[in-house]
Order: sequence, then C-alpha cells, then structure tokens
Amino acid sequence: MQQHSRDWLILSHAHLRVPELEGLLQQFGGVESITRQKLADLKTTGLADEKCAAIVSPDDARIDAAGEWLEHKAHHLVVFGEDSYPEMLSQIAGAPLLLYVNGDVDALHLPSLAIIGSRNPTRGGAQNAIDFSRHLAKRGFAIVSGLAQGIDTAAHRGALAVKGRTIALLGHGIDRVYPAANRDLAHEISASGALVSEYPLGAPPERWHFPERNRLISGLSLGTLVVEAARRSGSLITARLAADQGREVFALPGSIHSPLARGCHALIRQGAKLVETADDIISELAPLAGHLLHSTEPADEQETQVVPVDDDYQELLAVLSHDPASIDDLARQSSLTIEQLSSMLLILELHGEVESLSGGRYALSG
Amino acid sequence: MQQHSRDWLILSHAHLRVPELEGLLQQFGGVESITRQKLADLKTTGLADEKCAAIVSPDDARIDAAGEWLEHKAHHLVVFGEDSYPEMLSQIAGAPLLLYVNGDVDALHLPSLAIIGSRNPTRGGAQNAIDFSRHLAKRGFAIVSGLAQGIDTAAHRGALAVKGRTIALLGHGIDRVYPAANRDLAHEISASGALVSEYPLGAPPERWHFPERNRLISGLSLGTLVVEAARRSGSLITARLAADQGREVFALPGSIHSPLARGCHALIRQGAKLVETADDIISELAPLAGHLLHSTEPADEQETQVVPVDDDYQELLAVLSHDPASIDDLARQSSLTIEQLSSMLLILELHGEVESLSGGRYALSG
Repeated sequence: MQQHSRDWLILSHAHLRVPELEGLLQQFGGVESITRQKLADLKTTGLADEKCAAIVSPDDARIDAAGEWLEHKAHHLVVFGEDSYPEMLSQIAGAPLLLYVNGDVDALHLPSLAIIGSRNPTRGGAQNAIDFSRHLAKRGFAIVSGLAQGIDTAAHRGALAVKGRTIALLGHGIDRVYPAANRDLAHEISASGALVSEYPLGAPPERWHFPERNRLISGLSLGTLVVEAARRSGSLITARLAADQGREVFALPGSIHSPLARGCHALIRQGAKLVETADDIISELAPLAGHLLHSTEPADEQETQVVPVDDDYQELLAVLSHDPASIDDLARQSSLTIEQLSSMLLILELHGEVESLSGGRYALSG
Repeated sequence: MQQHSRDWLILSHAHLRVPELEGLLQQFGGVESITRQKLADLKTTGLADEKCAAIVSPDDARIDAAGEWLEHKAHHLVVFGEDSYPEMLSQIAGAPLLLYVNGDVDALHLPSLAIIGSRNPTRGGAQNAIDFSRHLAKRGFAIVSGLAQGIDTAAHRGALAVKGRTIALLGHGIDRVYPAANRDLAHEISASGALVSEYPLGAPPERWHFPERNRLISGLSLGTLVVEAARRSGSLITARLAADQGREVFALPGSIHSPLARGCHALIRQGAKLVETADDIISELAPLAGHLLHSTEPADEQETQVVPVDDDYQELLAVLSHDPASIDDLARQSSLTIEQLSSMLLILELHGEVESLSGGRYALSG
C-alpha cells in the first residue's frame, strides 16, 4: 500500500471531517505531515482527543485490511481536494472526507440524477422508476440511488438494462452488501458504474448512517426524482436535502387515493417540479449537464437485458408472448406453480421484459 | 308582467352589455327611461344601430313569452346593480347584464365552489367529483357546474345526494335542457338550488356560448376545482378564467399514464393548488367564506339518496351487500342481465351507493 493511501485511511478511520482536515492542513502542511505529528502537537489544534489518538495510534490491522482491499484494480479511494473527487460533492455542506469506490471512478463525474422512493412501491411505481431510469440513462445521465429494495432497485436495474451507468451510495462499509437480496445487483453496479461509501470497511449499516448517506445521493446529483413515497419517509428527507443543496427536486404525481403518492404531492406543494415524462427532467437539467449528454438516445440494439437466465425463466419466457395471458393460462402451459409464476413475473416486469395488464394478465413488453 | 321586468327583458334581448348600460343610465337616468327613448336619441350615445333598434322596436312576442315564463314562482330575473345580483359576479370583467334564474335566488349568494372536468371521465374521476361535492356541499358550499355529462353531472349529483345546494350555469336559454339526458337532473337542481343563464329564453346552445358561460362558472365561485381534464379542454379555459378573475384554482393530480390527468398536471405546474382532500379546499376558502360555512358537517341522517327507485333497482339493491360480489354473482342472484347490471351499478356508484372494488366486484358503500 502506498503511504499516501495509508495516510488517508488513517484519517478516515479517525472519522476526520473536511473542516477539521482543512484546519490541520493549514497548521501542518500536507496529509503525510498530519499523520506524523505527536499527540501533544495534534491536541494543540483543538481536535477531539479521540481523533488525535486515532491518528497517532491507528488500528493497524484495520488499516492493513483496507490496504489489501485497495489492491483490487476496481477498488479506489477518492479523497477530498484531488481531481478524482466529484465536483458536485465538493460543493455541499458536509462533503465527505473520502469515498471508498468499487467500480469506475469516472462515473462519479457524469451528469447524474438521483431516483429514489419507497422500499415497498406499487408495481406501477416500480415500473415508472425503471422507465425513467432507462430513458435518462440512455441520454447519458448516471442514475444515482441507494441500493435499497423497491424504487432504488428499480432505478439501478433500469439503467443497467440499457447498459447505462448507475451509482449506489451505501450507508455502510463498501465490503458489505445490505440488503443481502441485492448481492447480484451490487455486483452488476460495480461492473458498470460504481458502489460508493464514505464509511470505513466493515462499518455496519447503522440506523443513523442512512440520513447521512442520503445527503450524498442528492449531493452527487443535479436533481432528485421521487417516484413514490409515503407522507413521512426517508425519501422526503433526501428531497429536502437536495433542495437545501440548491439542486432540483422532481416528483411524480399519482392518485389522491394512493398513500404512496402523498409524499410526492407534499413535495410538489412545497415547490418540487411535477414530472410526467423523462423529457420534463431532461429539459430542466440539460442546460446544467451541457455537452455531457447524448443529443439522442443510442439505438435500442445496444440494450442488454439483465434478466435471470435459469431454466425456470427460460420456460416462462417460452410461453409468454405479446398476446396477454393470465397466470392461470401460463400455469397450464408450463410446469410452474402460480406462486412461482407470480414472483417470476414481477421480476421480469421489474426488468422491463414483461408488461402487467388489466385483469391480472401479462404479455411480453415492446 | 311588471314594467320593470319588461324594460330589463327588452335590454336583454337587445344583447346590451353592462358598460353600455352604464353609459345609457348616465345619459337617461333609469332603465325605464332608456326603453322610452326615440331611436335618434339612443343613436346619439354611440350604441350600435342594431341594439338601438332592438330597444326602440322590441320583439313583443318574445318579450311577452318571457313575461309568461316569469309568472312561475320559481322563475326570476336577477339584474345588474340590484341586491339580488350576486356580489361575486359583479366583480368580474364582463359581468352579465342579467340572469334568468329557475330556482332559489338566495343560492347565488352562498359561498360557492365550481367543480368541473371532462365529459368522459374515468369512473374514479367521477367518484372523486361526487365525493368532493358531497363533502363540500355538507359544509355549506354551493357547488357550481355546467350541467354537462361526466364530471359536471357528478358534481351536481354529489351535492344533491346530501341535500346540499348546487347551481348550474347554462350556455343556452333557461327554458331548454341540454344535454337532453340531464332533464331530470336539471329539474332536481332547480328544486334545491338554481339553473342560471344569461341568454334569452329559447337561445340555442351555440358553440361560442360555452366559453362565455364558463366565465360565469368561475366568476360566481370562490374557487374552481378541476377533477379530470385532457391537456386541451374547456376545463382548462375555465381554470384560466378563474385565475384571471383572481379566484383560486384547485386541481386533482393523477397517474402520469392517465390522459385525463394531463390537464390537471398542467394547471398545477402553472400554480394551481394540488388538492388531495376536500379539507385542502376548505382550509383555503374558509377565510374567504367566513361565517357562511358550517363549522362541522351536518349528521349523515340528513342525507337523501337520489337513487332511482324502479323495480330493477330495488331488486339489485336487495342482492347487494357490504360483502363484495362480482357482476356474475349478482346476475345469478337476480333476474337482471350482465348488461343491465353494468349500467345500473355505474349509476349507483355515481350516486355513492355502491363501491367498485378490484377484480370487478361491487359492494354497498359505507
């Protein structure tokens, strides 16, 4: 491990904040000088005793483990003040000291849009998240979200389905995956975009990490789109953070009878832009994103579908067609049970492969 | 017929406008003096020849017919400048010279809300119109609309169902009913609220009357609620008129996939208030309506249901219960056909008697 990385890892494990770093740099010159100070000299700066001790006597085992993690070619440290640090994050209050990145650091410099919402969306809501994500990823936006179930997953999946870029901000160490159900998704995101965390390796998903993490979801993005959210929900906090950071807030309206439209409606009343189509977002953000966007969408043949490919899915895809069929019909035509079919159809719908129609019928999309 | 009424009827049939009336009053004193002028004297005022001629040589047959109409105790002329003329209308540009009223003139002085929207709403949209109308009529608002099919009908019906007041502004002579399907509804409105027109008796429903009429719908009301409307629709014109008149505009959001939500979404983007519940409207309008509103809703036992009462409906109501049943179930339990049941259930739903549930099932409301 290079000494430079080691110095930054020590500061990260000491939970140093950017204003504290800036104070120490003013007194001691460079990061490499900070980590070589004596305890007494560090204490004269007014830095908390605990942080001084963590810098002078680092937990070598944890630092070495992080160094080992860094040896993988996809793993990076992106530190405050260097060119690889995203300009968008450097503008926000509480900019993170450094980012642990698994994937492509360049993705953090693309014009990006956060798509967030409920962990338990309606099917229509999840489909909207997929559709907006696909459309905007095709135009060159990186789609930012939080790797949670529901709308987050749909947002990441939509971008992946069109070979777009997507970025997941995590509320825990980047070596952990949470929720466990999203292990495969995390892997796909790191292969085509980036997983990002400000927490040291091994940090558990503490409850208070998530609001902190949310400031990075909004902060990395030109705007934040809320797809479905209950009246009191984390998505509204993220939207508030986006507004405080001077970023655009977009919200999808819905039925007045849908509890998951309430949060979006509250945002619209507070000034969020009501959005009906992806073009509504593009027309707002294109002037900010400038030349980095594609002027037209790449042709559809570039899309890859990230549909599961085991035998059951092959069997289901073989009996599906563009003519709508009920689950009962599909069960009769295959060896699959109603229960299997229900969950498989939902997954195919989330992948944009299947459309759910009225009367519980399904058909291939497009 | 009193001479006073006759004088005003002559001016109405001459299509005199309020600014023209004011000019003539300044010169000749009273209305009774205007109608006694010689043609040459009227012409000196600059009034159009056609109007001068219509005042000097009125169509006596039509004036007498209107006088006969006025003999009915529910029929009234409400003329500009008198106490019976609604204050709200006197404030607007293009205030009508007089109103032909069939019903209760006092209803025109209640705090009122216009509820308007598509002639071909979704069932959900029609139900929303009924629900908002019921709720707001119970609180003491007169519900204003245009007696068209769809949302207008639902708005009038909702108020009638709770013995509330409702007012229909017509785009033709008050002695005609258009559309013919709303003959019974018009009768019920005149019995508990008012039918209102500024057009002479017998005036046909000319295409250009409807935008003119729309300014009275918005103008009579503290606010206008648009329930469902396509992107280009008359409802949006009425909403624009309401805004120009300095009145509140409210709109119900809906799915981004519903063409009938587009108009409402466009209004919200232009500054209309997004509304989820009737209380959202009450909280905006109560300060304007003041002591005229009920502080709480009257008890439900005061409601009357204006459900059709023929034998078929009796039979259907007998087999309906609070347990959801499909149309097939209802057909088996009654002598009614699926087709009869479909239309009867829709009508009962529009009356708020029946709820439509998922999977094409129905149950008694409440």
